[in-house]
Amino acid sequence: MHAWDNLTARIRELDALGSANALLEWDQQTYMPPRAADARGEQVALLQRLYHERFTDPAVGGWLDQLEGAELDATQAAAVRILRRKYRRAVCLPTRLVEDLARARNDGFGAWVAAKQADDFSGFEAPLQRLLDLALEQAEFYLTPEHAHPYDALLEDYDPGSTVAELRPMFDRLAGELGRFLAAVDGRPHPEGFAARLDLDGQKRLSQRVLRDMGYDMQGGRLDLAAHPFSTGIALGDVRLTTRYEEDNFLSGLGSTIHEGGHGLYEQGLPARLAGTWLNSAASYGLHESQSRFWENFIGRSLPFCRYLVPRMQAIWPDLEVRPEQLFGVANRVERTLIRVEADEATYNLHIIVRFSLEVEIFSGKLRARDLPEAWTEAYRRIVGVVPPSPRTGVLQDVHWSSGLLGYFPSYTLGNLYAASLAQCLLRDLPDLWDRVERGDFAPILGWLRSRVHDRGHTVDAPVIVRDVIGDRDPVADLVAHLWSRHGAVYGVAQPS
Amino acid sequence: MHAWDNLTARIRELDALGSANALLEWDQQTYMPPRAADARGEQVALLQRLYHERFTDPAVGGWLDQLEGAELDATQAAAVRILRRKYRRAVCLPTRLVEDLARARNDGFGAWVAAKQADDFSGFEAPLQRLLDLALEQAEFYLTPEHAHPYDALLEDYDPGSTVAELRPMFDRLAGELGRFLAAVDGRPHPEGFAARLDLDGQKRLSQRVLRDMGYDMQGGRLDLAAHPFSTGIALGDVRLTTRYEEDNFLSGLGSTIHEGGHGLYEQGLPARLAGTWLNSAASYGLHESQSRFWENFIGRSLPFCRYLVPRMQAIWPDLEVRPEQLFGVANRVERTLIRVEADEATYNLHIIVRFSLEVEIFSGKLRARDLPEAWTEAYRRIVGVVPPSPRTGVLQDVHWSSGLLGYFPSYTLGNLYAASLAQCLLRDLPDLWDRVERGDFAPILGWLRSRVHDRGHTVDAPVIVRDVIGDRDPVADLVAHLWSRHGAVYGVAQPS
Repeated sequence: MHAWDNLTARIRELDALGSANALLEWDQQTYMPPRAADARGEQVALLQRLYHERFTDPAVGGWLDQLEGAELDATQAAAVRILRRKYRRAVCLPTRLVEDLARARNDGFGAWVAAKQADDFSGFEAPLQRLLDLALEQAEFYLTPEHAHPYDALLEDYDPGSTVAELRPMFDRLAGELGRFLAAVDGRPHPEGFAARLDLDGQKRLSQRVLRDMGYDMQGGRLDLAAHPFSTGIALGDVRLTTRYEEDNFLSGLGSTIHEGGHGLYEQGLPARLAGTWLNSAASYGLHESQSRFWENFIGRSLPFCRYLVPRMQAIWPDLEVRPEQLFGVANRVERTLIRVEADEATYNLHIIVRFSLEVEIFSGKLRARDLPEAWTEAYRRIVGVVPPSPRTGVLQDVHWSSGLLGYFPSYTLGNLYAASLAQCLLRDLPDLWDRVERGDFAPILGWLRSRVHDRGHTVDAPVIVRDVIGDRDPVADLVAHLWSRHGAVYGVAQPS
Repeated sequence: MHAWDNLTARIRELDALGSANALLEWDQQTYMPPRAADARGEQVALLQRLYHERFTDPAVGGWLDQLEGAELDATQAAAVRILRRKYRRAVCLPTRLVEDLARARNDGFGAWVAAKQADDFSGFEAPLQRLLDLALEQAEFYLTPEHAHPYDALLEDYDPGSTVAELRPMFDRLAGELGRFLAAVDGRPHPEGFAARLDLDGQKRLSQRVLRDMGYDMQGGRLDLAAHPFSTGIALGDVRLTTRYEEDNFLSGLGSTIHEGGHGLYEQGLPARLAGTWLNSAASYGLHESQSRFWENFIGRSLPFCRYLVPRMQAIWPDLEVRPEQLFGVANRVERTLIRVEADEATYNLHIIVRFSLEVEIFSGKLRARDLPEAWTEAYRRIVGVVPPSPRTGVLQDVHWSSGLLGYFPSYTLGNLYAASLAQCLLRDLPDLWDRVERGDFAPILGWLRSRVHDRGHTVDAPVIVRDVIGDRDPVADLVAHLWSRHGAVYGVAQPS
């Protein structure tokens, strides 16, 4: 088994390179001095090139060939399957296409920034079309007999195992259900507001307190500030979170902390014993997102959590007057709005479904860049029920396409769907869940997620991991029932039986 | 000139790798979570291995061969000379020796920690002898006809261009002069003390204020906390400092800040236009140290600087009562003590001279590990005038030998000597220096150092850079005169004419 030893040694080397790169990127968004930007770009580019060279080394393919013909235990077989898939994708693109993509992303991002600032799509049209053409070409190279649709080939970068054939009907059903829910809420009075100026140092202490209570290991991580909160699993024992605080809106910062904390708990729970196989990785972006959304939304926006929170807040701000019901109301406001990243838990998914439908049409050859502004507006009218007044709040709002990220959006709603069914199973297994949440006793929740999700790493694809937990539950029904039950209560409406 | 283009491209690549490594090491001492230690060790080892592989690539030797036979401009010629020297040293050690050294350093460090804790040299003797044997062997491989003494071959790692033949008589003279100075001070009353508890946040603001006034560019750097303060030039536009604060002893933390600030100003002033040649590097450890000591001692412990400091302190702590003369007295206390890192500006050099003499004897084959405790004690009695009661405060006090750092110590005193003569030249060129320091107008000082030292990078070796500024001044005489003049004044003694 020299091939296995060589392969895992190479993977450990790639992991160390990836860790160094992750630290460079973490630093870039937290502590890097402004004048370091150019040099940092060169450092990241070099490490990524070294990573690519060492992964696409023909020796790696040779070891995989040997292992595919050998007797393997279950772990080895799973690792070889995952590694072959990643290797095939890493080597199958011609250098010319990789370089064209890098250039088109660079041009596309610049053109998008300018177009958004000018609130005018026209300057972005040609660079976007170039990106779409290259993405189509890329999908052709990625395509295997397992892919029924070219879009499936791109999905595999983010949610391997998910397909248009499954997502489309699921998302269609979800859009219909959400439409009925929003129609019931439309015009009902919004919950009472809550306003307080809370000092940033106290907010930081609150965030750290909540993370510790959730079970996030501060000896193997940190919480820092960043303009755009993110989490990053740098290495074993090094999973870092970032958040941001606003004096006037502590729920926004705390929500970011809990969201990133959910990502961080997943990373901290990945199976360290599988180091060197890549089976110790997250199974998909969607599953990652299910963990952050589970904590942020299902736990963090619940009334019991608000009851847990209020005394912890008053320990920091003794004069603060706030009732759990106030926080609960503010956290569960529902409203049809234009901007995805500001959307509530229910409508958020409609924003994703708009983007998914457009991307599938692009990859079916039915939409070109020039058609997108109108198609976007039409889809928003039909699916979200609002019409963007101009491109800035419409087709130009997201950075993703300008950076060549196509196939990425579905992961967000997959995360919400996975989280909804996982939550219902957790409630079944832990009937006193809400009492525990109110007491801040989150350990059994984390333990449940650890054994059923985190500890499986990427030994199988995310749809299998989720299915093994939820059986034949219907995630669409679970998510919709949750929204009617929680947000419906806030708005005084009930799910029609 | 393909060879030149290839070579500089490779150097830029090595610089980017070195930068990534420097960030990993900075993070390790500032923000890294404790559980990340093992993984960080692997990351650093990998990047250092990749660095070594890409530098010792035979192609690099080939490009140097071609360039050595070609017509070169002055910059190219200087670069090829430096690169050839580094390349020769990087490729000349057999792999077996490199591995033995790594293992011996690892073992040596562990044995040193245990021996120091037990205050017993015996457990360190064998690992130290192993390190000395390997260092002797290493020096054999490094040796070229330019080296008159095996120790010169090791000095080259830290202070290329310095030799035993020059250092020994210079250090002997210095030891004699310092002995006379200390004899005059012995028994005289120490200056009045100064005690105040100053909050750490205020100390941080004071440190940042002083750094900005010195001309340190915060847009291209940062100041963080570390247990053992250091500075690191990570990349162009990214030169970071660390310091630490003690509530009861603000001068200690401020001294660290100014010292590291001096290193940082040097790094920020290296010639960016020479990127890709390594001529944009520090010329030596000794020259680096001259910059930190110049700011820390010559400027930072002067009475005018204390006059500058007091109003800045009172802006932070309005109730603080302190006179510049008090700070000046505390900062310039002289005392024969046992521990190098706690020594004053005068006796510090005697600690170095002890170590230098012992190292030269080791490399002359006259001392073995088992002889060192006694030789150390005897040298301290003779040179410093104190006798360590046990190994912990004697031969075991420093980490250097346990990590295989032999030839490193002289740089500290070289730095003090360089700084002393540079300071006298600065005073000649800027007669109102002390008025400016008192006003906090440090820009002309930095400008002078930039043009005469920083901007030369490593286009020539440090002794040449210094000689070009100081002409035939005698650094020993300059340092000794400075000590008599400043510390002598504090103790009421004058230099015999």
